[in-house]
Amino acid sequence: MSTEGPLRPLARNPRGFADKRGRDLSAERRIVRQVSEVYERWGFEPLETPAFEYADALGKFLPDADRPNEGVFALQDDAGSDEPGDWMALRYDHTAPLARFAAQSWETLPKPFRRYAYGPVWRNEKPGPGRFREFWQCDADTVGSDRPEADAEIIAMACQGLQAAGLAPGQAQIRVSNRKLFDGLFDAGGVTEAGQRLTALRAIDKFDRLGWDGVVQLLGEGRLDESGDYTRGANLPATVKGAVEAFLASANTPGLTRAQTLDAVARSGDLGAAGEAALNELAAIDRALNAMSVDPAAVTFDPTIVRGLEYYTGAVFEAELLLETADDKGRPVRFGSIGGGGRYDDLVARFTGQSVPATGFSFGVSRLASALRAAGRGDADAVRGPVVVIVFSEDDMAHYLSAVAELRAAGIAAELYLGRAGMKAQMKYADRRGAPAAVILGGDEIAAGQVTIKDLDAGRAAAAGIADNEAWKAERPGQVVLPRAELVSAIRRIIE
Amino acid sequence: MSTEGPLRPLARNPRGFADKRGRDLSAERRIVRQVSEVYERWGFEPLETPAFEYADALGKFLPDADRPNEGVFALQDDAGSDEPGDWMALRYDHTAPLARFAAQSWETLPKPFRRYAYGPVWRNEKPGPGRFREFWQCDADTVGSDRPEADAEIIAMACQGLQAAGLAPGQAQIRVSNRKLFDGLFDAGGVTEAGQRLTALRAIDKFDRLGWDGVVQLLGEGRLDESGDYTRGANLPATVKGAVEAFLASANTPGLTRAQTLDAVARSGDLGAAGEAALNELAAIDRALNAMSVDPAAVTFDPTIVRGLEYYTGAVFEAELLLETADDKGRPVRFGSIGGGGRYDDLVARFTGQSVPATGFSFGVSRLASALRAAGRGDADAVRGPVVVIVFSEDDMAHYLSAVAELRAAGIAAELYLGRAGMKAQMKYADRRGAPAAVILGGDEIAAGQVTIKDLDAGRAAAAGIADNEAWKAERPGQVVLPRAELVSAIRRIIE
Repeated sequence: MSTEGPLRPLARNPRGFADKRGRDLSAERRIVRQVSEVYERWGFEPLETPAFEYADALGKFLPDADRPNEGVFALQDDAGSDEPGDWMALRYDHTAPLARFAAQSWETLPKPFRRYAYGPVWRNEKPGPGRFREFWQCDADTVGSDRPEADAEIIAMACQGLQAAGLAPGQAQIRVSNRKLFDGLFDAGGVTEAGQRLTALRAIDKFDRLGWDGVVQLLGEGRLDESGDYTRGANLPATVKGAVEAFLASANTPGLTRAQTLDAVARSGDLGAAGEAALNELAAIDRALNAMSVDPAAVTFDPTIVRGLEYYTGAVFEAELLLETADDKGRPVRFGSIGGGGRYDDLVARFTGQSVPATGFSFGVSRLASALRAAGRGDADAVRGPVVVIVFSEDDMAHYLSAVAELRAAGIAAELYLGRAGMKAQMKYADRRGAPAAVILGGDEIAAGQVTIKDLDAGRAAAAGIADNEAWKAERPGQVVLPRAELVSAIRRIIE
Repeated sequence: MSTEGPLRPLARNPRGFADKRGRDLSAERRIVRQVSEVYERWGFEPLETPAFEYADALGKFLPDADRPNEGVFALQDDAGSDEPGDWMALRYDHTAPLARFAAQSWETLPKPFRRYAYGPVWRNEKPGPGRFREFWQCDADTVGSDRPEADAEIIAMACQGLQAAGLAPGQAQIRVSNRKLFDGLFDAGGVTEAGQRLTALRAIDKFDRLGWDGVVQLLGEGRLDESGDYTRGANLPATVKGAVEAFLASANTPGLTRAQTLDAVARSGDLGAAGEAALNELAAIDRALNAMSVDPAAVTFDPTIVRGLEYYTGAVFEAELLLETADDKGRPVRFGSIGGGGRYDDLVARFTGQSVPATGFSFGVSRLASALRAAGRGDADAVRGPVVVIVFSEDDMAHYLSAVAELRAAGIAAELYLGRAGMKAQMKYADRRGAPAAVILGGDEIAAGQVTIKDLDAGRAAAAGIADNEAWKAERPGQVVLPRAELVSAIRRIIE
């Protein structure tokens, strides 16, 4: 193979795709592991669907995907032949593949079917700083239960999952509402057209960001934003805009309990039959959360919660980090949403024509990892390096290799330096690897049946000035010479 | 959204893509977890590269990819605009992305750089029974060490990884050779053209399957196989064919030690300077394996090992399941290769022009899971279901929910049945879920402060006839009524 000339490829990641290692990767894997343990304890089974789905099975439910056929990575399946075939696309979430799987396997599944899933999803969007086109999501869903207790279970489990991942009680909150409240409002106001209702819902979904002044423009003719982009509005009648305003403002009092919020919302105006049903479902969710002893402050009802996705049909949830973090200029910012979900009773029916009720929750794994770093919990994922055995002479390889094998057999992470650099560079290497200790078996040590151990943890502590007194130094000498037989026990003393 | 009419998509997987759940998924995840623990104990750090690479960075190293630009899933990156851009492709292995990463990050990495990686890879091949286009691989590589001890470490670690995953000593073997032995043979015979050498190597790689008669045709003009397909041969001179035959046959005596194999190979003919270097490297690998106390039977030297991939430059390894398994008709079959690897000193240089030595090992996670099932170790991955709490009345939901919450708080996997079916269907559901027990809180039980527990494990044992004596039945009554406060302790007795 040619290794010269101008035809060498450039070593770079595709735009919007990142490599992960070290503390960040360790954090994401720990989150997935700990959340999975919670989900399994709640009776949810793991399911892994493939990266690709046929494009028609995937559907087009990405929010704000203005361009038709865009937003996903798609290609035509030639199935190893020269004939282009059906379009396939990489999954953009875990919900659409679940709906396909449930429709395909419905007859043979235990019902209701509870499953969790994690793994990468792909979105073909314009990449930018902090904006990736591949990221991990972790989902849990119950398919085949129309009971509000199924929603309550998802909400309570999401709370427990976030805590298992490292968020303290009080650092996150799940805000809950119900899409049917808006169905009732629109029914009562005579707004029947599905597209108009969806445009209105997406406008209301921006309440957090735009406030009522922005939302009311989007509920009316439209809105010109600061960058000069114009977004067409839902053109709701003035009476309906008024009803929406009263509805959104109804529970705008800090500290309301869930029951108080339901009372306030019920008094806000005519919510129609759908709205009444929604209030009953929310009341049942409230009772179920109490029966499961979920911290009352961890889940609130909030009529401003909508969720942008088209397919939600009932309860909707959004998990928000309450912690205030600082931006680049030190100003406090709210971290915002770290996940969400809701009830989607029509997604399986896309395939089968038969309605199958379903509800679920999804969170972004990288986003939760960032939230945990913002919450000051990043240290939990610091990566500890292996013990490094130093190499001096080719002739003594067997001594080094048996030492390193002995450490591993004792369950201690250890490696032999296998480059060609000298002692000084090897010590620097050990330090960069975060090694707790370096093991030195020079010719003298080997001849005397001894080993020298450098305590690099102690060295780092001394350098950081946290161990600047004599007693500590006496207890943790930087370097000791010991009989070779004491290697494992001496390393254990440093590590434990 | 429309849920009717003829436009409903068909719920099906793209061809060659499968859903995974239950025991199979549990086995694959366990394998990845246990092998990762071994790799981290050996000082290898996790690295996760993205699914996509630019096509030029990925290169074309798939074996037997006859069609140019095929074998991978590729698309043009429009980066969210309407302009088609550079070609991207899904990774087909973990080695090419590592080479890209190492070239890109070389200045800032600790060197040598040891990393492991796992995750799906994608191959755009003709799907067929048992032939998937997405599958998991698990790799470990050392980049930046030219020492044979780095190869030995990879081999020894692979042995330990396979054992950690569940293969007993003696069930798998790693066979090792060195590409430079063939370089030496070809040099000595005057075969200098790279394409001709690669064709010859790929012919020799089929020795296991075709035997010498088939290989010698492919080393000559070519071979017509049973299906009528003709494969062009390497057109080696007769003297070189003879030298290859003597070389391959040299160590064809069962039970040779590694040192005896090296002796036999050295006596087989003129191996040139490259062959001498190869024998020295293999001797160093032998010494290193002995120093690490690797079971001598676990690693053999075998001159017939080649590996089909173009990029190997030195030591090559192949892990083989020794177990004989039975085919559909009960005939014994060898399971064959479950992984392999080798030294590839030029792959990073594709990008940088500077040679960076590297060596690594890769195994197929699904393939290893199949191997473990064939080895009778599938039971380890049986999935235990959650305890199921039965639902009778809407009014008693709070009682059910607090019982299930209590079980989970005690660390017991538990769920509340949330469908709408009656008692009989719920018991069937609990059985299908593999539940160890069902918890019954009828109106009478609740009024009396009691709970009924059905021991489904005992029921299954009785049904299987393995518990057909009176003493066992007395100890494990199928159903007990207890004070409600004893729920957790009673379930613990069944589970533990």
